[in-house]
Amino acid sequence: MPALPKVCIIGAGCSGFTTAKRLKDRGIPFDVFEASDDIGGNWYFANPNGMSSCYKSLHIDTSKWRLAFEDYPVPADWPDYPHHAQLLQYFHDYVDHFGLRPHIAFNTRVEKAERRAEGGWQVTLSTGETRDYDALAVANGHHWAARIPEYPGSFDGPQLHSHNYRSPFEPVDCVGKRVLVVGMGNSAMDIASELSQRPIAERLFVSARHGVWIFPKYFKGQPIDKNPAPAWMPKGLRQWLGGRMIRGLVGRMSDYGLPEPTIGPFESHGTVSGEFLLRAGSGDIAMKPGIERLDGDGVVFTDGSREKLDVIVWATGYDIKFPFFSDAALQADAENRPPPLFKRILKPGVPDLFYMGLAQPLPTLVNFAEQQSKLVAAYLAGDYVPPAPEEMARVIRADEEYYTGQYYKSRRHTIQLDFDHYVRHLKKELAAGARRAAAGGHKLPVPGREPAEAAA
Amino acid sequence: MPALPKVCIIGAGCSGFTTAKRLKDRGIPFDVFEASDDIGGNWYFANPNGMSSCYKSLHIDTSKWRLAFEDYPVPADWPDYPHHAQLLQYFHDYVDHFGLRPHIAFNTRVEKAERRAEGGWQVTLSTGETRDYDALAVANGHHWAARIPEYPGSFDGPQLHSHNYRSPFEPVDCVGKRVLVVGMGNSAMDIASELSQRPIAERLFVSARHGVWIFPKYFKGQPIDKNPAPAWMPKGLRQWLGGRMIRGLVGRMSDYGLPEPTIGPFESHGTVSGEFLLRAGSGDIAMKPGIERLDGDGVVFTDGSREKLDVIVWATGYDIKFPFFSDAALQADAENRPPPLFKRILKPGVPDLFYMGLAQPLPTLVNFAEQQSKLVAAYLAGDYVPPAPEEMARVIRADEEYYTGQYYKSRRHTIQLDFDHYVRHLKKELAAGARRAAAGGHKLPVPGREPAEAAA
Repeated sequence: MPALPKVCIIGAGCSGFTTAKRLKDRGIPFDVFEASDDIGGNWYFANPNGMSSCYKSLHIDTSKWRLAFEDYPVPADWPDYPHHAQLLQYFHDYVDHFGLRPHIAFNTRVEKAERRAEGGWQVTLSTGETRDYDALAVANGHHWAARIPEYPGSFDGPQLHSHNYRSPFEPVDCVGKRVLVVGMGNSAMDIASELSQRPIAERLFVSARHGVWIFPKYFKGQPIDKNPAPAWMPKGLRQWLGGRMIRGLVGRMSDYGLPEPTIGPFESHGTVSGEFLLRAGSGDIAMKPGIERLDGDGVVFTDGSREKLDVIVWATGYDIKFPFFSDAALQADAENRPPPLFKRILKPGVPDLFYMGLAQPLPTLVNFAEQQSKLVAAYLAGDYVPPAPEEMARVIRADEEYYTGQYYKSRRHTIQLDFDHYVRHLKKELAAGARRAAAGGHKLPVPGREPAEAAA
Repeated sequence: MPALPKVCIIGAGCSGFTTAKRLKDRGIPFDVFEASDDIGGNWYFANPNGMSSCYKSLHIDTSKWRLAFEDYPVPADWPDYPHHAQLLQYFHDYVDHFGLRPHIAFNTRVEKAERRAEGGWQVTLSTGETRDYDALAVANGHHWAARIPEYPGSFDGPQLHSHNYRSPFEPVDCVGKRVLVVGMGNSAMDIASELSQRPIAERLFVSARHGVWIFPKYFKGQPIDKNPAPAWMPKGLRQWLGGRMIRGLVGRMSDYGLPEPTIGPFESHGTVSGEFLLRAGSGDIAMKPGIERLDGDGVVFTDGSREKLDVIVWATGYDIKFPFFSDAALQADAENRPPPLFKRILKPGVPDLFYMGLAQPLPTLVNFAEQQSKLVAAYLAGDYVPPAPEEMARVIRADEEYYTGQYYKSRRHTIQLDFDHYVRHLKKELAAGARRAAAGGHKLPVPGREPAEAAA
């Protein structure tokens, strides 16, 4: 049996442990390093590694019908939209069921990951240890480096990023306070809906530079993501149908006193909320335009209005960061764009590096790396060979246009992706890569693998 | 100018003050007695008269489009579903606009109202004073005498009726508690939805003997009550259309893990909630059947299951009571049925007594007495004469069958009523009564009115 490359997996969230499971299935050796004391990453509430954005009330906005792992069913008694604690339990059950736990080194942060000149990686751990690997799978997540935009002036009161929001009472007691939530993404919707309730905030403002479409969680009694338009349908048609559905379902945003979006329902990352429209239509949420400046005990908005405030919650998203890389070419750029990656996994010219789950797939990220890992495992096992660099570059450009072309330009939309379309095309690419491998394409070089193998 | 009867109005809630306004318009003399220090009744949050059931988060479940008074528009900047404080402000504005406040004696409870043998009423006030009136308009409300059903056993923890529920923190702090809400009416929906949120109750149970249909607040971006089927449409057709709409909109209740109703969407008083289905579909609400017995630190349900509980909230409705009447014939019976009333106003044989707002109209009670007062004022002014007693009895039976026939038998459904249908037929009745008056029908006898007048 030929030697298989040994892989370092950074992170034991859902992207990390599904990748691990796939490698284990294929007999590919690997170690997983997790900074925290347990698995779960973002879905591990109050994760001691500081990388969870869960708040107490958080239910995933993807239904159970779409987030299930391919080879491990979700519990039969789950509600449509499980709570974060249920999702974490599902992760634990998965990891235990497939015997992955012994492969994970907990409380062990990867401090440095450096590519050797001859290929392969040298990994420095928080324990001080250094280890060598043939390949590196990066699954460190992209919802932990909280981003707060800069505005002139300063604010005197407490302010926090949604990343650190836990409940109406923690870390800041918002009862009886005048609170501003900045942003209209999913966290903003949840937090604003929760805080705007009359027994909580005295007054709740939401600041957004432009309106967005808000999708409810249910359509005719069914989770809205349960019966998507098929992936073979042209994107334009799918979006037209979806737009018609959403308009028929929720009407106009201005019906609820919200700013009318100047963009279509699919020109920004979908914002899903079962509560926000109700709260807005009940007058519990006061909309504000963008922020002009922070102003001591309040904020001045771009329309010149000023509100006295006690608390600001910045639900303004995250930066993409890889703290263990010193090579800037492996990092996201100033506009939060990661390096161009083939199938969002492979950086052309760096054959032994895999970015896992580095996407904002619709409907969900939970089971996305599980799909990507098919390519990675096949590549590592020698059953897949990627196309030539120029073809990779062409595909990267085409995918980029397909997946992000419709969105307005924003730091928020650099890694958007259509899950079903991706999976459909990944399958084709795997078949094409298998043909290339059979035809003797250039496999991943692995020390110890027979040269004949490597070239075969 | 002939003498007009002098009227005592009990209560300065929306039924009382809209009646007052109508009498004032017609120049009919009246006094309003209000036990509280201000107007508003049920909609006066924390009303010192103990007769408000408002909780902090309460928004009326009727949209602004349907609750507006006929001759006083709601504020242009209102949200679709105003908060109770907005509604109360609207009431204040109405009362001030029409100069009604000087006619209201505040902090003055009617302790006794006794009909004199010769007609007319003797009213004893909490001030000790006694006054005589020609007619009595009862507008004391029917959402204040909290009813808690009796079960065997006892419960050790705090329990309260929804009438006394103010917020997740008052009068009982429900944070971290295991809470049972009993009932599936509108208050139950609101309170259960609010408490079930993960930062509040540790676990939230709802007990109901049978499933109900839950109507959302919005339909295609519009308040669901904004565009009702017209009142001239046969009831069966309206209900069929409504049932089709509701099923298309929310699907099956079991889709959300709720008990499937054994009755149709219009066989119980409509339960409206924009949140409950979401909470249920998110697994934050655990459904339980009826209660078998209270059991110390928990409750045993009819399916034999037992739950340990910290708090019970009884959202189990109200009894209809008129504490100032000693005559049992004027009270509701043991099944909570008020005396048979013509147009829900007049008790045959008691021509100088008017029950105002003694109904559960769909969509709302807020502006219902405003309609009824048209008949009352016309009657008092001599422009309306009711039909003969046997015809009144026939109409009472027919209306009863029309308005409540479709509901399952319950204390809850004794005063149901279709607002639009009622108004449509009230108009016809007013015209008929005017013809009877013109033809010399028997007008309300008023001391001081000329006998010729009274008979004319």
